[in-house]
Parts: sequence; C-alpha cells; structure tokens
Amino acid sequence: MTVALSPPLDLLPVPGVRLASAAAGIRYPDRDDLVLMELAPGTQAAAVFTRNAFCAAPVSVARAHLCQALPRYLLINAGNANAGTGAQGLADAHASCAALARLAGVSPQAVLPFSTGVIGERLPVDRLCAALPELLRGLQGEAWRAAAEAIMTTDTLPKAVSRSIELGGCEVRLTGIAKGAGMICPNMATMLSFVATDARFDDPVRLQAMLREVVDDSFNAITVDGDTSTNNACVLMATGVAPVSIDPGGGGKRREGFVEALREVMQSLAQAIVRDGEGATRFITVQVEGARDQEEARRVAYTVAHSPLVKTACFAGDPNWGRILAAVGRAGVPDLDIHRVAIWLGAVRVVRDGGRDPEYLEADGARAMAQPELTLRVVLGRGREATRIWTTDLSYEYVRINAEYRS
Amino acid sequence: MTVALSPPLDLLPVPGVRLASAAAGIRYPDRDDLVLMELAPGTQAAAVFTRNAFCAAPVSVARAHLCQALPRYLLINAGNANAGTGAQGLADAHASCAALARLAGVSPQAVLPFSTGVIGERLPVDRLCAALPELLRGLQGEAWRAAAEAIMTTDTLPKAVSRSIELGGCEVRLTGIAKGAGMICPNMATMLSFVATDARFDDPVRLQAMLREVVDDSFNAITVDGDTSTNNACVLMATGVAPVSIDPGGGGKRREGFVEALREVMQSLAQAIVRDGEGATRFITVQVEGARDQEEARRVAYTVAHSPLVKTACFAGDPNWGRILAAVGRAGVPDLDIHRVAIWLGAVRVVRDGGRDPEYLEADGARAMAQPELTLRVVLGRGREATRIWTTDLSYEYVRINAEYRS
Repeated sequence: MTVALSPPLDLLPVPGVRLASAAAGIRYPDRDDLVLMELAPGTQAAAVFTRNAFCAAPVSVARAHLCQALPRYLLINAGNANAGTGAQGLADAHASCAALARLAGVSPQAVLPFSTGVIGERLPVDRLCAALPELLRGLQGEAWRAAAEAIMTTDTLPKAVSRSIELGGCEVRLTGIAKGAGMICPNMATMLSFVATDARFDDPVRLQAMLREVVDDSFNAITVDGDTSTNNACVLMATGVAPVSIDPGGGGKRREGFVEALREVMQSLAQAIVRDGEGATRFITVQVEGARDQEEARRVAYTVAHSPLVKTACFAGDPNWGRILAAVGRAGVPDLDIHRVAIWLGAVRVVRDGGRDPEYLEADGARAMAQPELTLRVVLGRGREATRIWTTDLSYEYVRINAEYRS
Repeated sequence: MTVALSPPLDLLPVPGVRLASAAAGIRYPDRDDLVLMELAPGTQAAAVFTRNAFCAAPVSVARAHLCQALPRYLLINAGNANAGTGAQGLADAHASCAALARLAGVSPQAVLPFSTGVIGERLPVDRLCAALPELLRGLQGEAWRAAAEAIMTTDTLPKAVSRSIELGGCEVRLTGIAKGAGMICPNMATMLSFVATDARFDDPVRLQAMLREVVDDSFNAITVDGDTSTNNACVLMATGVAPVSIDPGGGGKRREGFVEALREVMQSLAQAIVRDGEGATRFITVQVEGARDQEEARRVAYTVAHSPLVKTACFAGDPNWGRILAAVGRAGVPDLDIHRVAIWLGAVRVVRDGGRDPEYLEADGARAMAQPELTLRVVLGRGREATRIWTTDLSYEYVRINAEYRS
C-alpha cells in the first residue's frame, strides 16, 4: 500500500559519483542489499544523524570519519542495523571500513558506513567484505535506481529523485535516494538518505548549516509512527565536478536557486517515505497556524500526527474531528484559549471558536476525509508561527507489517 | 478481547449510596445508558479531572459544583461526551442538573454531571431528562453492577470491585466502578471512575490530597493509546454512614488501612481498563528503574508504552528488544550513558551494558513474550527512582474498533 507513489523515473547521473550494488546475503536471499558509492576526490559532504541515544555503530563511525577526512566511499547495507551491538558492533563497522579502504587504496577515515534493518543482531562482516571486490569492479554513474532498490527494507518502492538546474550559466544536477517506511519520526533525517550534486562548495561548515536548514523542512517534517530510528542519516555530497561554485553561506541568487532545488529533492524523498509509510492508505498533511512559536506549533502538529485515534479515523475516512480536538487539547500548549481554536478538514471548517462550527455539515467532512490526500489544519489563534508536517494513517496493514517483520 | 478480566462478582452495597440505571436512548438502542447515584446528606467528595484543555462541558460544571456544595447526586451518561460542544454544551449540562435538582428537591449545585462517548455531538437533553423520574423511583443500594454496565462505551466488560475492611473495630466498605477502553492516557484519572465508601472524612481538602496520591499509583499509571480524553474524571465519595471517622491527613493506622484498600480498589479498576483496552491481547507492565528522578522514569516508561513498534512486537509475541532499546534511546533522557542500560523481558535479560546480553538466547525471549501478561523492565543505571505503568499491545482489533467506532 502506497499513496500516489510511483517508481522513480529519469534519474540523472551526477558527475563525480559512481555506484554499485550487490547481493551480499546480509539478510535477504536473492536481492541486492549492499551499495557502494564512490565520490570524486575533493567532494565536500555534510550530514545529519539520528538523535536517538542508542545510535547505531555505523552512525558513530560515520560521524567520526566525517570530522577526520573528506569522504571517498559510502558503504551502505540493508537488512541489519548494526545497532544495540555494543563494542562488537563498533569493531564490525570499523572492520568493514578498513577492508574497503585496503582494496580501494584510501584511508579508512575516507569510508562512511551506513546500516539499516533489524536491531540487535551482529553484522555479518565476512559476507559483507566478500562482496567488496565485485562492488568496486561494478562502479558506474548510472546505477542510482539499483542503489535505491538495494537499500530498501520494509519499503515497497524505491525512492529516488533528480533535478537539473541552471546556475551561473551551467547545468547543475542533484540526485538523491532514500529508504524508510517505519520507525520514522523527526528529530533528524529519517532513516537513510543520500543526495549528491556536482556543484562545488568550498565551505563545509556552511554546507552543513544549509543541509540542516533544508532537513528541517523535509526529513524533520515527517512521521509515520513516532519512533525515531537508531540509524537515521542524511548525507549531502557535493563533488564539485561542475564548473559552478556556490557559497553556501552567501545570500546570492545562486545559493537561492540551489537551496530551492535541494529542498524540492529532499521534500520529494521525505514525502516518498511517508507515501510508502508502513500500511499507509492516506497521505496526511498536518498544518498548524497561529502559534506563538515554532515549538508549540510543532508540538501540536506531532500530537495530532501521532494520535492513534486520529490516525485510525483517517484510515476509516471518518470525519471524527473530536479526536483532533482532543489531541490539540492534550498537546500541552500553556494557557490555550480553546475559544480561539479552529479546525479544518481540507477546505471544510469543522471547529470554530472552540466548538463545532454551526455551519458544518457531516456530509462535507465525509467528502473531505474520503480523499487519499488529506490536510488537517489547526488554527490556534495565539500568534503568527506556523508549521506543516506529513504523516500517514494507521491501518490493519501497519499492524501486520510490524507484527510479522521478524518472522 | 480482554486479558484475564472477568465480570465483577460480589459487589457490596455502600451504606449511604443508592443507584439506578435507565435506557434513555442517548445513543445506543436497547441498553441502559444513564446512571443516577444518590449520596446521603453530608457525603464528602473529592475528584480529579482531565487535564485536556478541551475539557468537556460536564467536567467544567462538575468541577464548579464541587466547590459550591456537597454533592447529593451524580448523573452519568454514556454514548455522548458533551465535549467540543461550546456554550450549547455547557447550557445542556446545566439544564440536566437543574431538571434533576427540581425533581429531587436539591440545589443544582448538589448535582454533578458526567458524560462519556462521542465528542462533538449535542447531548440529547430531552431524552435524558425524560428518564429522570424513572431513575429517581428506581434507586436502590444493590445496583452497582447495573451501573457499571450502563456507563460502558467501547468497553467489552463492566468494571467494578469491592473491598470490606475493618477499621477501629468497624466494617468499612469501598465499592467502585469505572469505564474506559480507548483514549486512555494518564495526566489524570482515566475516563470515568466512581468509588464510594461509608467511612467518614471530615476534611475535604485532605481527602482530595489522599485521592490524588492514590490516583498517581492507579489511574495515572495506565495508558492504552496515549490519547488523554476530554472527559476523564475520578470521584471518591465518603458517605460517613459507618461509625468510623478517618483523618485523611493523619498518619495513623486507620488512614493507612483505608489508603491500602482504596489503592487496591483503584489499581484493580485501572488495570481492568487496561485489560479491556481496545483490541488488547496482552497486559503489559512497563517498569523503569535506576532513574535520576520520577519525571525521567515516567518519560521512559511512557515512551516505551506508547511506541507502536513495541506494541506491535508485543502483539506478535516477538522478542524484538531492539524496539524497546530504540524507544529508551529517543525518550529524551539527558546525557544517557547507554553503557549502563539493561533491559529485561520478564525474567530474561536481553540487554546488558547497552548491548545484547552475550548470554541471551532468543528462545528464552520468545518464551517470555509468549505470556499474555508481560513485564518489560528497563534499568537506566543513573539513580534510585523507579516507576511502573500498565499498558496494552496494538492489534488489528485496535484498528478495527477505532476505524469503525462511529459507523
């Protein structure tokens, strides 16, 4: 079950990036589950990682390596998260990097490891390393779609998108892939996402700030089940192969154009994760307006988005707006004056002045809720801040997937 | 689906309390849905209510009336929450109280209204008032079981319990009823619960403090779905008909004995709500130890208890402890040293020193998770505070109930 999500089309190679996939037998039989990405020398990278205290071993290693060297390789496996694996997990992540570094002739710090899959089982390093020579031989620029497929776990479709823009008279490309369908909540780029561009950025600190800004509008604005993964990571790589240099801290048109394209790519990937959310039958936008500050806007939005009662009502297409109202009421907004609150289902106002809108007709609400893409809008009437996040409904299929995932 | 919950047996009448039920046609055809409780003159009462900002009209009215007069009648309806109903809802709650007060010859402030059911629809005051004469005629001391049945909504079994204790050479009785199966989260007495005793309390302020203390250990320690209802209320009534006076603020043996019995009654009712939780197939105790303070202990416990991934793993009987670990990691405990964390499934330690216990065998975990009553124990290794809460799993049936509730 996905909501208006199609397999990716027309992915553009990014000059300076080559990829390969292989079936290493990490967990799944008969499918690729290991991806190698090679970056041209001099590629700048920025990354944001999970804020879960139990961050996975590869997250610790990748974060450390990024501080020590420019990355040349990303090694990404599906099927095993290498999380909750203690010192052994760290050793396994380091061993994978070292093995690849030896074969490729780079320092281990130039390798960033990423893992996604089941928590608490040991990474099968031997099988992973056995696939490395094949991966190095198979590297090519056109392999984005295959890479997007190889990193899938409970995803039902690969997620990838490209943009080509003109900056300073040159073509600049962005291509990104992502995976994730469950254990999806903000507090960081959700699950794994890798976006590459051939633009050149000379200031890594400002590149990092730019990534964070765009992540807040994309991966940090989605939730499927409120569970923040141990392995979330989002990496932006700029190979600098195109003859276009962008100052990521500047305010110029070039940066603006790039940020707009990057936001499109990352929002598209983030929304694809929600559209493929476990058991999703609806794509729900929760919009909160009239908040005093961002924090309370987000708190209300996530309380609504995480409410199992709101989610099951959306699944049923039931305009049961009382559940939205109850979620707003328990979100912990200090001194909320309920008489200023309004709630809309799509274009239909259901709550005005804190109670049922006298003009509201149930048939209108039912029509609004029958759409596969819904907007739940809450107006708090306290200030000027607003936020918008994306989420899914809660269906039988969500329960089935998560009750059966390990069996 | 309930977990080891039986219909109530051997309910004891409480001297000074009479009850009656009637089919007022509030929402359900062919069943009682309205309860009247009459209290002897001089009955002291304490109550705790929902902290949801959108509290229902009857909650506002009952809270106000309790400050103005000793209560003589409780009027409780199921099928309609009279919440999200604005000024009309308040007028309807007041009208119900006034109608009863007229017929019974008491002041409207001596009537406490309670409602539970669908949010956002107008209370059918006419049908409710039409049933009042029958209720007044039918009052009797033995009718607790019928009252527990009449206040049910998505509950599958009535919830009621009695205790008889000896204090100061006299028998003192406690009988309580409760309802609730969904929209269950702490932050107050959950849904509706009414506990009566014939003991005498002369200090209402201290009675209130005593109730709050016991509620923290009972109704405030349960969660089904994290959704705090708009209508939660828990009322303790002491008729004082028994020749036993208890100082609720004292430290004596008499108070101790009473608090112990009250805690048993209220924990039993609170646990009954969880055992009858929507779609529940497991009764789960989440125990957190070694916390620095109560707040972080509770935060970790509720993050685990609300995680849809933990809940679906429990439904499946899957010892997928990585999900518990991930929930602990995202609970927002500051500077959590994961290397001190241990996690137990029942008596089986699965995580030690922040990673998989080397001695853990999956078969042991599977055996622990196969029980209908599970304990998930998290030891943080940071301090001496502990907490214990009760919750349910997340099943297909939960989704069915909440997707179909209004249809």
